[in-house]
Amino acid sequence: MTAKINLAEKFEHVPDPWVPKVVGALNGQLVKIARAEGAYVWHRHEGEDELFLVLEGRLAIHLRTEVVELAAGECFIVPRGVEHKPVAEPGTRLLLFEPASTRNTGDLDHAYTIEPDALERI
Amino acid sequence: MTAKINLAEKFEHVPDPWVPKVVGALNGQLVKIARAEGAYVWHRHEGEDELFLVLEGRLAIHLRTEVVELAAGECFIVPRGVEHKPVAEPGTRLLLFEPASTRNTGDLDHAYTIEPDALERI
Repeated sequence: MTAKINLAEKFEHVPDPWVPKVVGALNGQLVKIARAEGAYVWHRHEGEDELFLVLEGRLAIHLRTEVVELAAGECFIVPRGVEHKPVAEPGTRLLLFEPASTRNTGDLDHAYTIEPDALERI
Repeated sequence: MTAKINLAEKFEHVPDPWVPKVVGALNGQLVKIARAEGAYVWHRHEGEDELFLVLEGRLAIHLRTEVVELAAGECFIVPRGVEHKPVAEPGTRLLLFEPASTRNTGDLDHAYTIEPDALERI
């Protein structure tokens, strides 16, 4: 049986921005949490839609055509294939929902890249 | 392109407890919100794991072997095939992640049943 997931407690094990950790798995999808601060990198996921839910702080998801501004309690789904660059205020906390196959920097190789099989589960 | 999802605004379109509404879709999964109050019914989903995230209030997920008590900011994933009965304090608000195929009362036919293709998207 799975255990309950207290998001605030889980964040104690997430020290660094832009290093997502897995907190749950279901139906081939993963629930991840991440701290976010400053600018991430432009990337896209060819085969996966990606949901961002802001738990605390503010996140601007830059797309090539617009910027989607999210506050706590707001979500956005980036459709597969769409280039995006998240930019966050300090202290921002995110919940992500996406397929287990999702690579955090998509088709980009970058210092932020963590291969899906190397993601830490907390 | 999808639009951003403000959960508080979406709840203005969810008047009744235990009537989930769809707020997003990705990778064959749905993001739903629901008000919860009092006791739901025992049921199980044969083929789908189901995630509950409590946004406000308190939810007790009764299983046959234990009761999982969730407050705001806590999640639980009910594995496929596991019987469960959610019981909520008045005013509880939930976010659900589950496959698009998920029937809200699982294998049970009940007054609460809404067939997946009849779910309202808000």
